[in-house]
Amino acid sequence: MKVGGQPMRTLWPAPQRDALMVIDQRALPHALRIERLESAEAVEVAIREMWVRGAPLIGATAAYGIALQMNRDAGDASLDAAAKWLARARPTAVNLAWALRRMTEALRPVAVADRARVAWDLADAIAEADVETNAAIGRHGLALLQAIAQRKPGAPVQVLTHCNAGWLATVDWGTATAPIYQAQAAGIDVHVWVDETRPRNQGASLTAWELGQAGVAHTLIADNAGGHLMQRGEVDIVIVGCDRVSARGDVCNKIGTYLKALAAQDNGVPFYVAMPISTLDPALDDGAAIPIEERGAREVTHIAGVDAAGALVEVRLTPEGTAAANPAFDVTPARFITGLITERGLVNAEAGALRRLIEQAP
Amino acid sequence: MKVGGQPMRTLWPAPQRDALMVIDQRALPHALRIERLESAEAVEVAIREMWVRGAPLIGATAAYGIALQMNRDAGDASLDAAAKWLARARPTAVNLAWALRRMTEALRPVAVADRARVAWDLADAIAEADVETNAAIGRHGLALLQAIAQRKPGAPVQVLTHCNAGWLATVDWGTATAPIYQAQAAGIDVHVWVDETRPRNQGASLTAWELGQAGVAHTLIADNAGGHLMQRGEVDIVIVGCDRVSARGDVCNKIGTYLKALAAQDNGVPFYVAMPISTLDPALDDGAAIPIEERGAREVTHIAGVDAAGALVEVRLTPEGTAAANPAFDVTPARFITGLITERGLVNAEAGALRRLIEQAP
Repeated sequence: MKVGGQPMRTLWPAPQRDALMVIDQRALPHALRIERLESAEAVEVAIREMWVRGAPLIGATAAYGIALQMNRDAGDASLDAAAKWLARARPTAVNLAWALRRMTEALRPVAVADRARVAWDLADAIAEADVETNAAIGRHGLALLQAIAQRKPGAPVQVLTHCNAGWLATVDWGTATAPIYQAQAAGIDVHVWVDETRPRNQGASLTAWELGQAGVAHTLIADNAGGHLMQRGEVDIVIVGCDRVSARGDVCNKIGTYLKALAAQDNGVPFYVAMPISTLDPALDDGAAIPIEERGAREVTHIAGVDAAGALVEVRLTPEGTAAANPAFDVTPARFITGLITERGLVNAEAGALRRLIEQAP
Repeated sequence: MKVGGQPMRTLWPAPQRDALMVIDQRALPHALRIERLESAEAVEVAIREMWVRGAPLIGATAAYGIALQMNRDAGDASLDAAAKWLARARPTAVNLAWALRRMTEALRPVAVADRARVAWDLADAIAEADVETNAAIGRHGLALLQAIAQRKPGAPVQVLTHCNAGWLATVDWGTATAPIYQAQAAGIDVHVWVDETRPRNQGASLTAWELGQAGVAHTLIADNAGGHLMQRGEVDIVIVGCDRVSARGDVCNKIGTYLKALAAQDNGVPFYVAMPISTLDPALDDGAAIPIEERGAREVTHIAGVDAAGALVEVRLTPEGTAAANPAFDVTPARFITGLITERGLVNAEAGALRRLIEQAP
């Protein structure tokens, strides 16, 4: 997508293949900070500390982490060790394990001398595939928005989204935002309700920023407000991303997604999940078994923003020493999900449909 | 309740009856600021700008506003004018209109020369009645917590609450917190999940502060997390306050309450609303007709806290110029409410039960 009118991706390999360039998303929306990661250890930190975040982007970033490790030491022990500690950087998203498995399975049969080159080629291919996947999700989701637009001529299509499943969560296009960008390109009048997404505020800092850069009409709301807007008929469709989807269609996504799904069902608002097939975990049936990352209390008790002078300042919101719990994800049971928007089309959140989807996949 | 071990209320008349003393709650939890309000205009500002907030406290504060106005000019025109613009300070809570109506109806038959004295006496009576009401709500709610404690010996009773329906929202005791304080006094092991309550963070700044001052175990959570905790069985009961309850039992309360009610129903968690009978609006059947206050965008895009040096700083969380919507309340339909905890006992959220409640009221 574009930043200040210039095309940009969330990551790209340095031309010499000696580093990975990423946007340090912690500085957004106040500054666009590009960082150069020169080792797999640096990649691990960038994933763990959420310089990069979003299930698809985490996968692509980790693939480049393996490529950087192969530059230094392409032996089996080095490969296995890097894959092991990169996998532990974030516990919930399945794309991380998926990308690392693809890298290690592809590299093991390759001669050690060739592994670095093959690793960079494969990481590039994973990144390109993510872009294509999201473009395809956008085309399939576009049909949903077109149908709504036809039902209410002269009025904007009102989309609600949670967290950032935008291009910043992927290599490009985004998952939940891809249909929105395609709708914009198709001349559809679309307006997005952007959930703030406490405690890390990815909606306020990332989704609002990228929609603003793209010129898509949007309004920020507190996470508390979405149910009220649905009661008032001001939401036509909810589209969110996902971090892991179970074999029967339970969707693990950013904490608070479940509450919006409940409100959507209570108000007859269609609730869609944009899901690259790589986010499906066929080994896991019940979404309640997905491990939920518990993050630090400080993300709840403190927050950073810019003061009147433009300086980035962290402030404490609570009494000193207040305890806080910070589960980062929740699981929305399949029964609340109208459909999954995949790169191969719309799919029901249901075991049989998801099994057929995997069997058809190339 | 106690602050730093000393008993304190949220408001009290100055001994000379020439001013109302209030806690300016905007400075909490970082500073305890006591302000002296010397006119009805100052009271109106304190209500509108939320130095004081919470439906019961707004009512008592407005009553003292009328008393201050009677000090200056006790004529009919003065009385009616003050009641009119005090009523417009906040549009949603019914207690404001209720307290002003009680004051004007009681004062009109009184000789002008006596009105100031009668007004102060009546404002005192309204404040005392609030304290008694909340204590009674606490006793009736205590029975619910005792029953839970008996079912799970050795484990804490887990209460989730939203916003601040604590003693800071009333003259003393609080509504939703009154059963919690009574449980603490009765030696019940109780732990409170405190919803942060964006955008004004009344949970993080007020409820966490007052529970901390009282020594009640509590953990702050993002508003997004409550549904997940209920799915995991970590919430035994939800107790919230209310700003207006319709004749059929629809509950208007702080934005986001509806989402928690949906999650409670989906997970079989009892959802109770602490309701002083003065919060009931028998003139209104459908809660969807309650006017919802739309507050400024800046409450969503900016936030204040203390920096590392202890200075209060306001920071911007969003890209510059981001539009935000800020509905301050939502309406939870009666079908999601297990029961209303009133000063006269538990009542079903249902038209017949609420009609009988009003008919029985003295």
